[in-house]
Amino acid sequence: MSEEVKNEEVLEEVEIVDETVEETPEKTELDLANERAEDFENKYLRAHAEMQNIQRRANEERQSLQRYRSQDLAKKVLPSLDNLERALQVEGLTEDVRKGIEMVQESLVQALKEEGVEEVPVENFDPNFHMAVQTLPADDDHPADSIAQVFQKGYKLHERLLRPAMVVVYN
Amino acid sequence: MSEEVKNEEVLEEVEIVDETVEETPEKTELDLANERAEDFENKYLRAHAEMQNIQRRANEERQSLQRYRSQDLAKKVLPSLDNLERALQVEGLTEDVRKGIEMVQESLVQALKEEGVEEVPVENFDPNFHMAVQTLPADDDHPADSIAQVFQKGYKLHERLLRPAMVVVYN
Repeated sequence: MSEEVKNEEVLEEVEIVDETVEETPEKTELDLANERAEDFENKYLRAHAEMQNIQRRANEERQSLQRYRSQDLAKKVLPSLDNLERALQVEGLTEDVRKGIEMVQESLVQALKEEGVEEVPVENFDPNFHMAVQTLPADDDHPADSIAQVFQKGYKLHERLLRPAMVVVYN
Repeated sequence: MSEEVKNEEVLEEVEIVDETVEETPEKTELDLANERAEDFENKYLRAHAEMQNIQRRANEERQSLQRYRSQDLAKKVLPSLDNLERALQVEGLTEDVRKGIEMVQESLVQALKEEGVEEVPVENFDPNFHMAVQTLPADDDHPADSIAQVFQKGYKLHERLLRPAMVVVYN
């Protein structure tokens, strides 16, 4: 707004000056100075806006990096957890060994949980979280999309899937 | 700011115009325009420099977050690794159980290694990486600062210590 007013003002002055001598160079200089001022004002405003954008994006990125920081290590730790769970299925473990394995398993689950990693729920088949490795015919007792068996647990980090659960599903 | 300048400008014009011929007001206006231009140029340059600083800091921070992203989960996984190692010391494990535990241990070590986590070396005592939980008198065969025994392994993430090694040291 202020810029527009300024320009009108300058135009009026210019019209009058044409008649006289000497003044034209100063007017031009003034025009140029005003243009320069306007130019830098625009540059400043753009730089300022860009600065705020950069700051906002950096904040968002930082938050996302923080939230998902454990993603890579968590993914790599999951097979160890699978193996511990498989070990617990083995017949004929002594009580000490079983207790030991359970302890390691629990502490690993706890470590993952504290970082936001949790098992994917397996109530009803959800293609976003489950991978059907086998299907069984649905019947009255087993409606379509109910899950018959979990071959391998799935995990997510907060709302982000780390790996799907491998399931047998009725359909 | 720009509004204030405008007001001053107007006032000056009114005062001066009465006395003289037409040049002074233009000069003043030019001066003000030049000042305004200079002012915005400075603001622009500062904003630009600040923008680069913000960008640089955001980059540094992003790199650091990336580099140490696994720190928290890694720290929490270490006790599981300790327990697996302790389990392997137990007498009378069947060959299958031993193999199973070793497999889990190795996959956990590998997962940590891929994320930059490694054991702290234990050649000579270094207070930056070791915690002396016990000392033994040094002698000809065991010079001061050599390590007699490692109670618990230490780990670092890149160059950053996750936890010190617990050692017995000669001194």
